[in-house]
Amino acid sequence: MISFDESMKRLYNLEILPKETTRLPLMDSLGFVLAQDIVASYNSPEYPTAAMDGYAIKAADQALKKLKIQAINPAGAVEVPTLIAGKAIKTFTGSLMPQNSDTLIPIEFVEEKDGYILIEKEIEEGFSVREVGENFKKGEVLIEKGSIIDFAEIGVMASLNVTEVEVYEKPKVAIIATGEELLELGEEQTRPTQIRSSNNYTIEALVKKFGGEPLQFGCVGDDIHKLKEVFTIALEQSDIVVSTGGVSVGDFDFVKDIIKEHLGADVIFKGVVIKPGQHIMLAKKNQKIILALPGFAYSSTVTALLYLIPLIYKMQGVEYKHNIINATLLSNYKKKSPKTEFAPCNISLIDGKFFIDFIGKKSGTSAIMTNMLGHTALAITKPDEGDKKMGEEMKVLIYDCNFKKGGANE
Amino acid sequence: MISFDESMKRLYNLEILPKETTRLPLMDSLGFVLAQDIVASYNSPEYPTAAMDGYAIKAADQALKKLKIQAINPAGAVEVPTLIAGKAIKTFTGSLMPQNSDTLIPIEFVEEKDGYILIEKEIEEGFSVREVGENFKKGEVLIEKGSIIDFAEIGVMASLNVTEVEVYEKPKVAIIATGEELLELGEEQTRPTQIRSSNNYTIEALVKKFGGEPLQFGCVGDDIHKLKEVFTIALEQSDIVVSTGGVSVGDFDFVKDIIKEHLGADVIFKGVVIKPGQHIMLAKKNQKIILALPGFAYSSTVTALLYLIPLIYKMQGVEYKHNIINATLLSNYKKKSPKTEFAPCNISLIDGKFFIDFIGKKSGTSAIMTNMLGHTALAITKPDEGDKKMGEEMKVLIYDCNFKKGGANE
Repeated sequence: MISFDESMKRLYNLEILPKETTRLPLMDSLGFVLAQDIVASYNSPEYPTAAMDGYAIKAADQALKKLKIQAINPAGAVEVPTLIAGKAIKTFTGSLMPQNSDTLIPIEFVEEKDGYILIEKEIEEGFSVREVGENFKKGEVLIEKGSIIDFAEIGVMASLNVTEVEVYEKPKVAIIATGEELLELGEEQTRPTQIRSSNNYTIEALVKKFGGEPLQFGCVGDDIHKLKEVFTIALEQSDIVVSTGGVSVGDFDFVKDIIKEHLGADVIFKGVVIKPGQHIMLAKKNQKIILALPGFAYSSTVTALLYLIPLIYKMQGVEYKHNIINATLLSNYKKKSPKTEFAPCNISLIDGKFFIDFIGKKSGTSAIMTNMLGHTALAITKPDEGDKKMGEEMKVLIYDCNFKKGGANE
Repeated sequence: MISFDESMKRLYNLEILPKETTRLPLMDSLGFVLAQDIVASYNSPEYPTAAMDGYAIKAADQALKKLKIQAINPAGAVEVPTLIAGKAIKTFTGSLMPQNSDTLIPIEFVEEKDGYILIEKEIEEGFSVREVGENFKKGEVLIEKGSIIDFAEIGVMASLNVTEVEVYEKPKVAIIATGEELLELGEEQTRPTQIRSSNNYTIEALVKKFGGEPLQFGCVGDDIHKLKEVFTIALEQSDIVVSTGGVSVGDFDFVKDIIKEHLGADVIFKGVVIKPGQHIMLAKKNQKIILALPGFAYSSTVTALLYLIPLIYKMQGVEYKHNIINATLLSNYKKKSPKTEFAPCNISLIDGKFFIDFIGKKSGTSAIMTNMLGHTALAITKPDEGDKKMGEEMKVLIYDCNFKKGGANE
């Protein structure tokens, strides 16, 4: 068994090439990872541009106090008039500045009367004029290869007229739930020993949320021949195979042997000193990954958060690091094992600070998936840490911004 | 003009019914909002269940030190054997506990030899047995109406065999970019006064990311007749109309009048003491919302984050509150106006703590969308606050977990 830190190190050090790239229409690229730099194809703005509604003037002409309105210059106009000395051109937010003008006096600083403006408040030269290249300059790299495409990236690319974008294909993640006792969603129960599968559905949703493309293989039982067949097909069709169950020490735990012997994969690690999920196994076969998670619902979800998300992003050339914050305990925490523990906690954001508690979280086995509902995060303790008391700080892994709000955030 | 707090209060107090509900297959429901309580339809587990691999015994029989292995009881077995006093049944994680057994002695605590187990370490009665209802009890509300469906909710619903789920329809958000100078993505530029539109694409991506269904109306220019027509159609076809531009004091800023006079909507507010975005307007027409944002790219993006996201969730019965955290300044901040300012900052998570700086953020006009790229959040100052110095704390609005990592997170 290796330590949690060692397991993450081995994961980050895996020699895996990113997926192939593909071109997508810009508006289909949200959530993908850029496989190209985005370079500014022009200066923005390209010409001096008005930043407000007002009058384009020469700053020095403010001394005249009264300027004749020469013309009107709307944004997007077909032709931009040239300013005559001593006059003013009505100019709007986004309009190009007229030739010969150097300053925009805002509408609020003048009185308009009988075709003239009376200057009520003087401004410095260049006021409210956006300079050429103020936003960005031609040739500048604005978004680097390896960036995850979010709404701001979409906006900037649209402003550059990037109609199509080169992205990494999302890795295909095959999901297999093992265990003879498992019933598929909607399948009829025929004996009391059967339970509903949830792992494969939880992981499918998690893969969708965190940048992968799920391939659902469903519940495949415990039969070793069936398992071999399904693992073989899954590995052929996907980039990452994720399984749940069958990695412990029981007589029917065939998964670890199938990965090693049948698939012939190289084991990166088997067994990590974590709770939950100590039996986890990570293996590599050529450019593909096999991640064997434990069977209990809480265990498989936590280990998917810890290992699967970074793997999905790794295959898109991104080093995904977990978000670990400090939070103050609002209840006591009882350390249960000399392992790196990930305990489900309620997380609140109150007046800008994070707080956690364990109220209502059941401390039974790792089978309890309801502990992950709602405003939940994972409180972390290292193997050598002891119990924690109310008021102390803990490290907490967050995977989204779904915090219970209080105080100023309420 | 009203204060930022007052504007949010008016938004939260809007009398808007949630959207209609619809039934979706469970695996299509990720990201939707539940319109029903999810109630446990059975006890979980339904029967006492083994939490580990080991031997089902009567705890008292440990005194015998040596127990004959009576049978093997795999998970999901067709029949569960009944334990004979003084014997042991090999039982696996997830297997039902045999009748007459009360305890599971883990495989690691015994030696198996010639069909017997030798007890090496005694355990207390009930060890490693998951009690009936330990996870949840029949009739318990596990997920409340109004919850956003995430991976944990999917998993718990799958475990309850919820094949279809009642959710609120996502609100349709019509997106209109006004301004004669705007060119659509891919459209050919014919005069220097034209610039590329980005607002409508940024907002489309933002709507997708934050639970709405975008309806793209594109760039519609400044012609008042065209604008009236497009706003009328947009309002008919959507739940929320979002426009950018045309809300300032310029001669071609028709949007505010169209909303009031042509659409006949009730103005909830027009003008908020914020930077950027002070000209923002929120209006309501029957059960529909019109949100008129300013035209500059940074302004429209920030105001969409502030107002549009809560409106999208409000229409699904969820009160979405912003996530405002404390962060320490790594560079100075210059307060620019006596308004509530939202300044783009770089955000880092280092050893569990949040830090912000303004390095590389251009402080020009609100037109600068590149300031929102990458690890960005919004540093907030209230109207009466002054400059902030390196080392001081600021309130920061975060809208996802895309933090630059350092220290223990690295």
